[in-house]
Formats: sequence, C-alpha cells, structure tokens
Amino acid sequence: MIEEVADLRIQPGQQQAFEAAVHKGATTVISNAKGFLGYSVSRSIETPERYLLRIQWASLEDHTVGFRESPLFKQWRAIVGPFFTAPPAVEHFTVVDKPAQ
Amino acid sequence: MIEEVADLRIQPGQQQAFEAAVHKGATTVISNAKGFLGYSVSRSIETPERYLLRIQWASLEDHTVGFRESPLFKQWRAIVGPFFTAPPAVEHFTVVDKPAQ
Repeated sequence: MIEEVADLRIQPGQQQAFEAAVHKGATTVISNAKGFLGYSVSRSIETPERYLLRIQWASLEDHTVGFRESPLFKQWRAIVGPFFTAPPAVEHFTVVDKPAQ
Repeated sequence: MIEEVADLRIQPGQQQAFEAAVHKGATTVISNAKGFLGYSVSRSIETPERYLLRIQWASLEDHTVGFRESPLFKQWRAIVGPFFTAPPAVEHFTVVDKPAQ
C-alpha cells in the first residue's frame, strides 16, 4: 500500500463548494479505479485555501498508470480542476512508522 | 482533534538513522506532551530525502503553545534537528472528509 499526497491550492472563498466537489469526485469517480483503497481530505488552518488530499492505493502503478491513463482521470479533473489556482503538487509516500495507538 | 503536518528534508543517505531517531523522539519525547494523540511518518517515493511527519493533537494550542514552549521541544529537536537540511515546513490541518473504509 502506498499513499498519494496531493497538495492543493484553491480559489479563495470556494471551500464549501470545493469540499462538496472533491467528495463527489472521490466517491463517484476515483473509488471506481483499480487499487483504490481509501482517501481523506484535510484543510489547512493557517492557509484556508490549502488542502491535502490523500489517496491510498494498492500500488504506485495503480495511481500513476491505471488511474491517470484511464478515462476516470479526466472525469475527476473535470469535477475538481476548476477550483485549482495552481497545478496540484503530488508525491507518493510509504509509511515507515505508525505505531498502534 | 487537529493534525500537525511537518514536511521534512533530511541529509541524503541518512534515511535509516533518521527513521530510528524520529521513532525515538516521537515515542520518548513527544508522546509525553499534553494533548498528544498519535503520529505517523511517511517517506516520499520520488524524493527519498523528504518525509511527512504527522502528529495528531487534541487541540492546536497543545502543539503551538503546550509542546513548543515546553522543554520537550528542545529535547525533540536535539534528536532530529541534526538530520534536517532545511527548516521543517509545518502547518496544521482539520480533516474535512474521511469516509469509513
């Protein structure tokens, strides 16, 4: 399992509409992709136009090839793309330490 | 509950030592702070010197005041600070969407 972390900047004042859009896009589009395991969305307290979208995938290629090269990617971007003020900054992460809590 | 997200850059080749240090610092120092709820550490696949350290706190002030102004902060920085090649980029986040999976 790997985690995609997308650092997103959206138009000021559009938080409520963006949060509804990303929920719709994640639950009706991305969730249909092979290897999709789950997601979460967090809003920055210091920078209210900044969000972190995290998506858990079974493998790196499930995101970079399977999803990005599928029609689902265009559907997703059509829903959330209009809110972005900059291209999303995306990297993928491996959890190296997460003690049981 | 809020989440501190620290975006960390460390010296090349020091991954193994850093991961041991951050585990030690989190479990023996930060875990003693009031309001500490848990943490995780992830390493970037594209940028192996980049880590995201996430710490869950009961409140924003538990981190920004309670922890940062306590002796624990200096103890923590003594353990992990030597690995950093840049000041950590830290913001705090509120989860706005995390469906049950």
